[in-house]
Amino acid sequence: MSAIFEKVALIGLGLIGSSMAHAMRRGGLASHIAGYTHRAETLERARAVGFADSLHADLAACVKDAAILSDVGSVKGAVIRDVGPHVPEGVHFIPAHPIAGTEQSGPEAGFAELFDGRWCILTPPPGTDAAALEKLASFWRGLGSEVEVMEARHHDLVLAITSHLPHLIAYNIVGTADDLETVTQGEVIKYSAGGFRDFTRIAASDPTMWRDVFLNNREAVLEVLGRFSEDLSALQRAIRWGDGEALFNLFTRTRAIRRSIIDAGQDTAAPNFGRGKKDQ
Amino acid sequence: MSAIFEKVALIGLGLIGSSMAHAMRRGGLASHIAGYTHRAETLERARAVGFADSLHADLAACVKDAAILSDVGSVKGAVIRDVGPHVPEGVHFIPAHPIAGTEQSGPEAGFAELFDGRWCILTPPPGTDAAALEKLASFWRGLGSEVEVMEARHHDLVLAITSHLPHLIAYNIVGTADDLETVTQGEVIKYSAGGFRDFTRIAASDPTMWRDVFLNNREAVLEVLGRFSEDLSALQRAIRWGDGEALFNLFTRTRAIRRSIIDAGQDTAAPNFGRGKKDQ
Repeated sequence: MSAIFEKVALIGLGLIGSSMAHAMRRGGLASHIAGYTHRAETLERARAVGFADSLHADLAACVKDAAILSDVGSVKGAVIRDVGPHVPEGVHFIPAHPIAGTEQSGPEAGFAELFDGRWCILTPPPGTDAAALEKLASFWRGLGSEVEVMEARHHDLVLAITSHLPHLIAYNIVGTADDLETVTQGEVIKYSAGGFRDFTRIAASDPTMWRDVFLNNREAVLEVLGRFSEDLSALQRAIRWGDGEALFNLFTRTRAIRRSIIDAGQDTAAPNFGRGKKDQ
Repeated sequence: MSAIFEKVALIGLGLIGSSMAHAMRRGGLASHIAGYTHRAETLERARAVGFADSLHADLAACVKDAAILSDVGSVKGAVIRDVGPHVPEGVHFIPAHPIAGTEQSGPEAGFAELFDGRWCILTPPPGTDAAALEKLASFWRGLGSEVEVMEARHHDLVLAITSHLPHLIAYNIVGTADDLETVTQGEVIKYSAGGFRDFTRIAASDPTMWRDVFLNNREAVLEVLGRFSEDLSALQRAIRWGDGEALFNLFTRTRAIRRSIIDAGQDTAAPNFGRGKKDQ
C-alpha cells in the first residue's frame, strides 16, 4: 500500500500509539512517524523500542503541518465538546475509537496486529469535510481495522453497554471479593478458576484512563447501569423464589450471543479463550 | 504411579467425567474405568472417544463394588443433605469439587490436563473415615489437582463469590445487552471486543447445571449478591457525583488481585488471556 499520509504525529506512545506505529510500518501508511509524550521516561522507552522516525519532547514541533486531528479515546461526546472549540481553522477534527486493546500498557505493549479485524468507529462532527473523513477511514483500514461511522452520542451509548458497563461490573465484583470478611483474599485467589479470574483481566486495566471514561460518559453509563440493576433485581427474585424456569430461560438465551460473537470473528472459539494448557 | 483404585465408576460422561478418565489413564490411577450415562446417545459418543474400559446403560452394574462414593458438583451442602441419607452402610460418601472447567460440554470436550494445577476441594461430612479421605485425596492429586479439605458450608460461601456470583453477573449483563432497545444486537456483537466478549464466555456455560447451582446454593449466593449490589450502588453514586478519587482508588486496588492470581498460577499473564492473534 502506498503512503496515505506524508506525516503522522502520535501524541501518546502507549499500547495504542505504539501499535499504530507498528501497523503503519507494516502497511507503509506514512512517510514519517513522529511521536510525542509528556513523560521523559516514556520517551526513552519508545526510543528503545524504535517504532518512530522522530521523537519529540515538544508538542508543537511534533504536530507541525498536521491537517487532520484525531484521537483514540473511549468517549466521543466529551472530546468534541472540550477539544472542538480549540481546533484552528484549516485543521479537520475527526474523533476515532479503535475497539481494540489489551490489559497491558506502555510503549513495549504494542504490536502491529492489534487492530486486525477489529472495528474502528469514526464520529465526525456535523459539517466534516468528506475527503478528510475518507482519508482517515482509509488510514484505519490500512492499520487492519474495519471502519464504521456514527454520531458521537450513539457511539457513547453503544460503548456504555459493550465496554464501560463490563469494566464497571468487573471492577465492582473484584472489589466486593476483596472486602468480604467471611472469605479470605487467599481463598479468592486460589479458587478463582471457577469464573472470577475472567473478570480480573479487565479489572486490571489502566485506572487513570477508566476513571476518565466514567467521568466523561456519565449519562450513558448511568442509563445502562440502571437497566442492569433492574435486571439483576429480577434475577435475585428468581433465585429467592426458586424460579428455575426463569433462570434456565435466561441462561439459554445468553448462549446464542456468544455464538454470534464467535461467528462474527470477534472472539476465539477455543475453550477458555485458548489459554495455553500449561499456564491455564 | 501405581493404581489407587481397582475400579472407578464414572456416573456422567461429560467434560468432567471424560477429563477424569483421560487423566486417570495418564496417571495409571485405576485398573478399570467404568462409565454410565442415562442418555443412549451420549453413551455412543463416549464409546467413539474410547476413554472407558466398560460402558453401561445400567447404573447398578456400573457402580457394583464401589466403596467410596464421591461427586464433582459445584454445591456441597445440598448434596450432603439430599444424598447423604441414602448412602448404604460400608460406603464412604465424600463429596468433591474440582475447580476446573471450560464453557464446553460433552464426552468429546474432555482432556487429561483439565485438572493440572487447579484446586480440588473435598468436603467430608463429620465422622468420615480418615483412610478413605486420604485415598480420595491421593486420587485427585494423581489427576493433577492440588487438594484442600473444608466444611461444606464454607465451601459453598467461597464458591458463591469465586464462581457463582461471576456467572450470575455475566448472565445478567449479557441479558441486559440483549434487551436494550437503543442499541441493536448487531452493534453489541460487532463492538464486543471492548470488554463485553469476556463475559459471554462464562454466560455460555451449561444452562441446566447453572440453574441447579443457583437453586441449591441460594442462601450463600443471595448473601454475596447483596454485598455486590451495595458496592455497585456506591460506585453508581461516585459516577453521578463525579468522585474521580473514589473511582481511581477502587480501580487501582483491583489490579493487585489480578497480579496475585497470575503469581499463584491460576491464570495466564499473556495479554487478552493469550487469545491466538489471528482469531483474537
